[in-house]
Amino acid sequence: MVIDLKIMIMGVDGYLGFPLALKFLSRGHEVVGVDNLSRRRVREVGSHSATPIYSPFERFVALHEEFPDFEWRIMDLRDSGEVDYVLRKHEPDAMVHLGEIPSAPYSMIDLEHCNETMMNNIVGTNNILFAMHKHAPECHMVKLGTMGEYGTPNVDIPEGYFDIEYRGREDRLPFPRQPGSWYHLTKVHGTFNIMFACKIWGLRSTDIMQGVVHGIVTNDMLRNCDCLEKTLDPRLITRFDFDEIWGTALNRFCAQAVIGHELTPYGKGGQTRGYLALRDSMQCLTLAVENPPDEGEYRVFNQFDECYSVNELAEHVVKVSGEFGIEAKVWNIENPRVEAEEHYYNPDMEHLPGLGFRPTYSLDDELRITIPKLMEYRERIEAKRGRIMPTVSWTGGRYSVPVGRALSGLPPVELEVASFGEPG
Amino acid sequence: MVIDLKIMIMGVDGYLGFPLALKFLSRGHEVVGVDNLSRRRVREVGSHSATPIYSPFERFVALHEEFPDFEWRIMDLRDSGEVDYVLRKHEPDAMVHLGEIPSAPYSMIDLEHCNETMMNNIVGTNNILFAMHKHAPECHMVKLGTMGEYGTPNVDIPEGYFDIEYRGREDRLPFPRQPGSWYHLTKVHGTFNIMFACKIWGLRSTDIMQGVVHGIVTNDMLRNCDCLEKTLDPRLITRFDFDEIWGTALNRFCAQAVIGHELTPYGKGGQTRGYLALRDSMQCLTLAVENPPDEGEYRVFNQFDECYSVNELAEHVVKVSGEFGIEAKVWNIENPRVEAEEHYYNPDMEHLPGLGFRPTYSLDDELRITIPKLMEYRERIEAKRGRIMPTVSWTGGRYSVPVGRALSGLPPVELEVASFGEPG
Repeated sequence: MVIDLKIMIMGVDGYLGFPLALKFLSRGHEVVGVDNLSRRRVREVGSHSATPIYSPFERFVALHEEFPDFEWRIMDLRDSGEVDYVLRKHEPDAMVHLGEIPSAPYSMIDLEHCNETMMNNIVGTNNILFAMHKHAPECHMVKLGTMGEYGTPNVDIPEGYFDIEYRGREDRLPFPRQPGSWYHLTKVHGTFNIMFACKIWGLRSTDIMQGVVHGIVTNDMLRNCDCLEKTLDPRLITRFDFDEIWGTALNRFCAQAVIGHELTPYGKGGQTRGYLALRDSMQCLTLAVENPPDEGEYRVFNQFDECYSVNELAEHVVKVSGEFGIEAKVWNIENPRVEAEEHYYNPDMEHLPGLGFRPTYSLDDELRITIPKLMEYRERIEAKRGRIMPTVSWTGGRYSVPVGRALSGLPPVELEVASFGEPG
Repeated sequence: MVIDLKIMIMGVDGYLGFPLALKFLSRGHEVVGVDNLSRRRVREVGSHSATPIYSPFERFVALHEEFPDFEWRIMDLRDSGEVDYVLRKHEPDAMVHLGEIPSAPYSMIDLEHCNETMMNNIVGTNNILFAMHKHAPECHMVKLGTMGEYGTPNVDIPEGYFDIEYRGREDRLPFPRQPGSWYHLTKVHGTFNIMFACKIWGLRSTDIMQGVVHGIVTNDMLRNCDCLEKTLDPRLITRFDFDEIWGTALNRFCAQAVIGHELTPYGKGGQTRGYLALRDSMQCLTLAVENPPDEGEYRVFNQFDECYSVNELAEHVVKVSGEFGIEAKVWNIENPRVEAEEHYYNPDMEHLPGLGFRPTYSLDDELRITIPKLMEYRERIEAKRGRIMPTVSWTGGRYSVPVGRALSGLPPVELEVASFGEPG
């Protein structure tokens, strides 16, 4: 085991960042976390995490009890002076950059949310790249991209690059990206910017094209208590967002099952993506950090375990929630997104298994932990029932959604497009 | 001839924008120009255009004398309210979007210039896309990209997309982009953003991958005078930037020849790019505007005429300036950029010839007009002699350049890297 790396986590207060800090600390690494607490802004869309998230101070104290050296700084990556300062002060060996706005529907709300997502994600990453070049040129940046950068091409998806023959000549080129939202576009922009920084400055980076991560508990969240078994420290659990803006399709289905709402795949439901359990995501990120690339190397890892269509996800949720006495129904609704609903999908994943990655929890395994846990928080989900169905449309309007109708058993009604507001 | 299109030009005060307004007006179109006058900020790097550029008011009056309906608005594309307003007010049939910061070295100066270029180019284009969607969904956006988006792959460069076979399956995919500066990256980001907007909103766009444009005079700048022949109206001439930041390699060579400075190709000088005379660029943009794509169509035109290496450019300048009594010498200097100095280069250009494009002026033809014109402005170039040699390096330092040595006939000395300043 590689020990005592100094690792900086950008976005340590987020869904992945907090469990990752726990993971690295448990493995004996030194961890500095930074965050602007923007993931807590789900309140702005009238939502909250199904799992109660403690205040930053309480979370910090919970980590400190076991790891007194852990540091956490509240700051914004768009502030180049702050970014410069933390890189200069800590000169980390590695950094996991999770400090980006991670929501496709959020970026599609309107122009302001599009530009906010672009600026936050692009400027934040640029600020980090320049500060690395200046103060920590040996640092290894592990950057969270998304499998969504590739879109759904009609050919296999390699890991970042592919060798092609074209008109009788050969080259190794970046695989074409076809992102499907302003948010996904920012991830592609980041990919290109980081690739360029590695080329001109000799920085090293692993760009993670990650699938959809699911689950809320890892072993690092268990603590000794009076009883014989370790139990979950509630201060250490991670977020479970289930609203239309911040929740994944899988999270929405789980939440819908728990409150007796039909599961609502968008469109035909043949949209297929890669999925990965939270603890396996932590395993992968650890492998990436502990096996850095060479100086100047920009490498791309596809990171997922299983591929499912949205309809298949819904079927798994129906099956596993049935084991807990829930009778869930599936109801495909009009797709608010512009995306292929039936397509070829065959991504490679060889780099991480080559470093030793072995998946531990399947979708069903993880659902058998998540669903009963969510049943404890049924009231918190019920309180935000009205925020699950989509109101943000890719074609540019805001819908007034018949949320009440969804439970009445009536067929979906035509959604009305709300008119644009006048500029402020 | 298609007449009376209502065309908006973003960046009408720039090198291409002003001659383009003249061109469209001469063809009977209605033109509205907008600009934030940022190209006049070459003063900030201690430089100026070799050709004197009249004040915005004088330029406006010069156009108005012949075309009283021409409108010009000074505004910034980063202001979404302003962009929304002009699109709503004018509902143009077509738009040529030249309103971006166009300099690779400018974007490479430091983090601030990198982020400024990113934000200006990305936010400006996003603001336009959203305003088009809202107020002018039929409008055809002709967007200026650059051949530099493709980089220098070891295979032929198609026009935007290519049909590939990969592991036995086929698809038509965006051709991989490999941009070579923060500026070039913004052009790639714009390409992806526009492609996406056309897909989700049904907008129509022509994305122009343009080569390097050269020349300062078009026929539209000639006006009747007392003599028999039409002569150049000096208020109508376009910019000629020759400093390290805003000048192209070709412009620097012309300026160097005129003031008796060695021509200084960077590195081995095998860097090959596409080139196009200003009047032929105007011809191409006119063809693009007057032959719009279908609703929802995003098409890519490669736009250039001849391909030359940097060394070949220098040879042409030596030859043509020799015809005007100038004995120019060539002196390759250390390359401040990170780029391939010898490479394969074979881009396609079929779409524009298919619409009727016929190049009229070769590099030598255009140089025979440009060089004697520059000789009239020798003193203006001489005054900025110190701003021609490079001080901005791709590897991240600022050089203190031995500008004096360049004329002394001594070999190039080792350039010293200036240390980074502390953050403010």
